[in-house]
Amino acid sequence: MLSEVLLVSAPGKVILHGEHAVVHGKVALAVALNLRTFLRLQPHSDGKVSLNLPNIGIKQDWDVARLQLLDTSFLEQGDIAAPTPEQMEKLKEVAGVPENCAVTERLAVLAFLYLYLAICRKRRALPSLDIVVWSELPTGAGLGSSAAYSVCLSAALLTACEEIQNPLKDGARVSRWPKEDLELINKWAFQGEKVIHGNPSGVDNAISTWGGALRYQQGKISSLKRLPALQILLTNTKVPRSTKALVAGVKNRLIKFPEIVAPLLTSIDAIALECERMLGEMALAPALEQYVVLEELIDMNQHHLNALGVGHAALDRLCQVTMAHGLHSKLTGAGGGGCGITLLRPDLEQEEVEATKQALTGCGFDCWETSLGGPGVSMHSAASLNGPVQQALGCF
Amino acid sequence: MLSEVLLVSAPGKVILHGEHAVVHGKVALAVALNLRTFLRLQPHSDGKVSLNLPNIGIKQDWDVARLQLLDTSFLEQGDIAAPTPEQMEKLKEVAGVPENCAVTERLAVLAFLYLYLAICRKRRALPSLDIVVWSELPTGAGLGSSAAYSVCLSAALLTACEEIQNPLKDGARVSRWPKEDLELINKWAFQGEKVIHGNPSGVDNAISTWGGALRYQQGKISSLKRLPALQILLTNTKVPRSTKALVAGVKNRLIKFPEIVAPLLTSIDAIALECERMLGEMALAPALEQYVVLEELIDMNQHHLNALGVGHAALDRLCQVTMAHGLHSKLTGAGGGGCGITLLRPDLEQEEVEATKQALTGCGFDCWETSLGGPGVSMHSAASLNGPVQQALGCF
Repeated sequence: MLSEVLLVSAPGKVILHGEHAVVHGKVALAVALNLRTFLRLQPHSDGKVSLNLPNIGIKQDWDVARLQLLDTSFLEQGDIAAPTPEQMEKLKEVAGVPENCAVTERLAVLAFLYLYLAICRKRRALPSLDIVVWSELPTGAGLGSSAAYSVCLSAALLTACEEIQNPLKDGARVSRWPKEDLELINKWAFQGEKVIHGNPSGVDNAISTWGGALRYQQGKISSLKRLPALQILLTNTKVPRSTKALVAGVKNRLIKFPEIVAPLLTSIDAIALECERMLGEMALAPALEQYVVLEELIDMNQHHLNALGVGHAALDRLCQVTMAHGLHSKLTGAGGGGCGITLLRPDLEQEEVEATKQALTGCGFDCWETSLGGPGVSMHSAASLNGPVQQALGCF
Repeated sequence: MLSEVLLVSAPGKVILHGEHAVVHGKVALAVALNLRTFLRLQPHSDGKVSLNLPNIGIKQDWDVARLQLLDTSFLEQGDIAAPTPEQMEKLKEVAGVPENCAVTERLAVLAFLYLYLAICRKRRALPSLDIVVWSELPTGAGLGSSAAYSVCLSAALLTACEEIQNPLKDGARVSRWPKEDLELINKWAFQGEKVIHGNPSGVDNAISTWGGALRYQQGKISSLKRLPALQILLTNTKVPRSTKALVAGVKNRLIKFPEIVAPLLTSIDAIALECERMLGEMALAPALEQYVVLEELIDMNQHHLNALGVGHAALDRLCQVTMAHGLHSKLTGAGGGGCGITLLRPDLEQEEVEATKQALTGCGFDCWETSLGGPGVSMHSAASLNGPVQQALGCF
């Protein structure tokens, strides 16, 4: 068991193209979003394991001795696996989450306990440690916040238990794990995602683990070889929506109008493929015309998503406001509200970007200027984290 | 030669679905628009033929004797045919249109002279007559105003010259010609359209002649057997646009992104076919759910047209304003401004319709509440025309 403090981060994700179409066997492009979740793991000898999630107001601890005495035989499955419904019931007993706790909070605690028990149970004694997780990502906005949480937990717990090595060398600010270790982190994170989401696609934990961009189709995930640096505005309309209802709506529309909707999904598929091709070209030899193509693809897909019935007046507003500044936007994720992305061409004046952000926040939206395709899960030195992150993690 | 006053009307048209896609071999549905063009033909013995077009400020007359002396041998082609460029030059000499006259006005005069000389030349002497044409249709808005003009001229001149019989029986208010006569009217009107447009599809004159709705694909025109009564708002954003540039823009997009745009055109085709099927069902047994389907088709096609790049902020505005009243709209025709149609469900309160019209005119748009699928070219008794039409035609 390592005795040092671990500082881990992992990115969120956005769907660049292919949301909804992916449900019907088409390609989706997911890209790492450089809004990150940060985790601080502090080993202790106080006989407690504590979890502190300041974003969602969770602060809970458990006696390690009590956890040690629990019948965790249900975790003895030899290999990495998600808990069955019965096992989930046992976990809930262990968790002791207050009755009035909301679903998101409850699931975050369960995912932690599951990963803690399952990863650390190979050790003679369960370790005593404090964990703080804080995120720049809004939760429940389709930005992969739960996957970033699971990835951070898996990476930190696997490292603390010496299942994988701490990649941070003396004097380094940030380091990443080798490929095999990342694969292990990703597998465990996927189990955490299953606790939270039931039946996740595995895209969110993969992109949070590997970073960059990946292509997903019918269960097959592959990384994009090359990716240019892309700056975006990420805007949260804060309009709540049900992903499940939106997915069902598209399915119903496909059943009702197969001759109309099937070619539309084909067109969305072609947009994702054209974008993938264009990103590859841009990584080799970037030119402004390529950004114009990306903008055309964004516009067409936004209209297609509207035609699928997953638009929203707030998203129309977002598109109009950014268009008034010459910028192109689309919804990302489930639609019906939620988030949109706006491409920032490299030739843009910062003044124009600021004016756009101001106009968007003027609509009551949250808006972040950030980048796409950044690194996946990483180990940090304390010095490499900025003040607000250090403060949020209680590093002082 | 008939000596009685003739009062003829013919409708404009809207494209319900299939604009732009029709250029690429897909189905378009055109429907008669009950905004009509009215013509009054008054035989005279003053030796003059006069044309009065109050909408566009044309008031011109010619000496019949001078026209009679002209070498109109170029019209002696035995059959109905459009003039060649050389013949058009001769017509321009005959016309004597002032130099400062705009293109639309010049072409309206040429089409009249062409139809007058070509239809009436079979008579021993060219007739002396006054013609007034007045229209409820805005010109150059893609609503088939030139076709309605050519259809009215052909019907009136063919009737005046007794090539076809006046269908109006004693005491009747409105009558229509038998099928063979309508075919002749349509053929001549198509020649008038050629003078004005060069290479028209023939859809506009067909719908203005036959009324109802028709389906057009790759040069083939066929009438829809059954059509329900449809009420709409027709809105003119008055944003000027170039049909030619918009058509070229779609073609360029198809060349640039064939895999994306070809399935989009396929989807638009399926929308037109589904609409045709639904209209047939509605004519037999109308139900409110069918209007909901028509609304869904309108929404999807509007998004598709946006994805083709032929939308406009004013059309977005139109859609948003009507949507705020629960009504669904799409552009009609070339897009990039121009006109939009809004379906009025039969369960709508007139109050709601009025509020929507007021909101649209508040945007600076022109807005008409009218119906689709009305009768084609018709002969009227004076009593059947309302006051404003009679006044515009100088019936008093």
